[in-house]
Amino acid sequence: MEETHDNLTRIRQLEKELAQTIRKSEKKIKQFTTLSDLNALLNSSLDQEEVREMAMEAATKLMNCEVGSLLLLDNDSNELYFEVALGEKGEEVKRIRLNVGEGIGGWVAMHGKPLLIPDVSKDPRHFTKADEKSDFITRDILCVPLKIKDKIIGVLEAVNKLDGEVFDEKDLELFQLLANQVAIAIDNARLYEELQETFLQTAEALTDAIEKRDPYTGGHTKRVVRYSTAIAKYLNIPPSEKECLKISAILHDVGKIGIEDVILRKRSKLNENESNEMKKHPILGHEILEKVTRLRDVIPGMRYHHERLDGKGYPDGIDGSKIPLIAKIIAVADAFDAMTTDRPYRKALDNNNAIKELKRCSGRQFDKEVVNGFFKAYSSGDIFNS
Amino acid sequence: MEETHDNLTRIRQLEKELAQTIRKSEKKIKQFTTLSDLNALLNSSLDQEEVREMAMEAATKLMNCEVGSLLLLDNDSNELYFEVALGEKGEEVKRIRLNVGEGIGGWVAMHGKPLLIPDVSKDPRHFTKADEKSDFITRDILCVPLKIKDKIIGVLEAVNKLDGEVFDEKDLELFQLLANQVAIAIDNARLYEELQETFLQTAEALTDAIEKRDPYTGGHTKRVVRYSTAIAKYLNIPPSEKECLKISAILHDVGKIGIEDVILRKRSKLNENESNEMKKHPILGHEILEKVTRLRDVIPGMRYHHERLDGKGYPDGIDGSKIPLIAKIIAVADAFDAMTTDRPYRKALDNNNAIKELKRCSGRQFDKEVVNGFFKAYSSGDIFNS
Repeated sequence: MEETHDNLTRIRQLEKELAQTIRKSEKKIKQFTTLSDLNALLNSSLDQEEVREMAMEAATKLMNCEVGSLLLLDNDSNELYFEVALGEKGEEVKRIRLNVGEGIGGWVAMHGKPLLIPDVSKDPRHFTKADEKSDFITRDILCVPLKIKDKIIGVLEAVNKLDGEVFDEKDLELFQLLANQVAIAIDNARLYEELQETFLQTAEALTDAIEKRDPYTGGHTKRVVRYSTAIAKYLNIPPSEKECLKISAILHDVGKIGIEDVILRKRSKLNENESNEMKKHPILGHEILEKVTRLRDVIPGMRYHHERLDGKGYPDGIDGSKIPLIAKIIAVADAFDAMTTDRPYRKALDNNNAIKELKRCSGRQFDKEVVNGFFKAYSSGDIFNS
Repeated sequence: MEETHDNLTRIRQLEKELAQTIRKSEKKIKQFTTLSDLNALLNSSLDQEEVREMAMEAATKLMNCEVGSLLLLDNDSNELYFEVALGEKGEEVKRIRLNVGEGIGGWVAMHGKPLLIPDVSKDPRHFTKADEKSDFITRDILCVPLKIKDKIIGVLEAVNKLDGEVFDEKDLELFQLLANQVAIAIDNARLYEELQETFLQTAEALTDAIEKRDPYTGGHTKRVVRYSTAIAKYLNIPPSEKECLKISAILHDVGKIGIEDVILRKRSKLNENESNEMKKHPILGHEILEKVTRLRDVIPGMRYHHERLDGKGYPDGIDGSKIPLIAKIIAVADAFDAMTTDRPYRKALDNNNAIKELKRCSGRQFDKEVVNGFFKAYSSGDIFNS
């Protein structure tokens, strides 16, 4: 009987152990599947801000904790700055900067090693300022380094495990796997944005140089880009088209490279022949850039920025329904800048008179909605601050 | 006794089951950890070719199979083309194109659903041409779609499970998780390279237009880029510096935008004043681009491409030890093109005489190693084919 009893105990024990093992294994697989999904999500964007937000959400979700936070290293100052998803109070925290070595995050960034702290109140490294500023109480924390090719770029934190649990070593391992992907996704987005910036800056530098051949247009391109961007804020335009508008505005006068010095720099009014030459610049610009495959959507904004709603513009004289929105926006921006800057043969109009002129020509030369967008951007001051 | 016997059987059974469950769970966790490492690796590059190779290696490693292959969709022709890691024979396979719908890969690309085929010889969809061309025998296959935002971009295959095992549904699930990351990594690399291409094409288009102001230099920039690239092949230069050289060569004469038409287009020899104006173009180019942060390493190649080893060049008259290699390369490429093209005031030299001239000036005007690189590139024909 005793032997039977022992056996039964052993059976119950084994059954319990088996059930536990299965449960743990299923939980683990679920966690890993979540990790894989989060990795895919993280890497599916090349927008730095989006990636950062997703990283914090991913930390929260994978670690089943109250909040995830991201501290990135500013290489110039060697400080860590917060990216947190804590709503309004988070904004306060965002302004906090930690020296490398300071606080738990700073320790991890300095040593390149993870920390698992079950009770921060007992850890002298804990930096209390962030909690104070956000009315938040940090109880326990997981903090892992973000590395790209052995270089620390920041740290990722998971704060306050939920459901009465505490972080353990297994959590730390899983969290480090997430952090590896976060680092890569952040780095890819950074590289992409840097290249994008280099492209835009180079285009700006070259068009600026092209513009300088005509001493009377100093800063024209930059202002047209600013005005166009400001107008677009008040029209319903998707982000990709805004990007396209910006490039188109930068390049809108690029065709002037093909206009001779004698015409471009003439200090009196152009005669008919000269004027006709000058009016070729949108076509010349189109010809210059047509080989660039991925500027296909940018070219129409450049080619048609001197077209008019009533079909009396150039170079093609197409009517309003055929002029793309981007070109209509650049047309208004371009006209406002032309009117408000001196020319060799006439003085600049003041802003009020230029605005009257835009109003007068709205619906005939310029698109009404775009002119309205301009007025809104002007009233709000965005025209001069974008 | 019988009860005891039953209990003991049950205990042995439970112990076995527990051991199996633990083993399976450990295996699964190992697989998932491998998946996570592979994901990090895949996303750590923005080079399309590198990502593709890593994708095939990852398929092989994660699925413990003989070979991984990747078929990508060519949107223009709606065909799938192979990327395989099969050594020499693989090159044959690379030339095979499958229509969407054709073969197992084509079926998966058409339906967007995975396939697990334990014995391809019994599946009429199997496309035998690839096996024939590569002397390879496909036994069993896992094939999953690669999708970006619900759009099929290709398929990933794992072929011939090793160690006498066969693929099962669990393998398929895991493989699809890998494929999700492969699709993203390929797409990110594509986006990055497209942007890079747009940047280079735009810079080329603009410098081409700038160059066209001087009718005697048609195609000069393009040739200097080609010659420089060819020379670099024969010098020991890291890839990042080659990239830098290319951009520098594209932009080397950009400063000519600041030179007046009358000087730029003069058909007779320039007088001293004019010549001094003309010699400002490297400085003007530097000024134009100095605001572009990430062209920092590109500018020296442009500024110093008219410097000479003996310090008698312009604009700075620095001596050989201070001239960066990139500038030395552009100098030789530039000189060879200048000598071998007509000018208003002199005829072009033929290639042989231009080469003699390079030889004569080697060590005084031009860097010896660079001139040697040029000769090698010239002899091999790379100069004209790069």
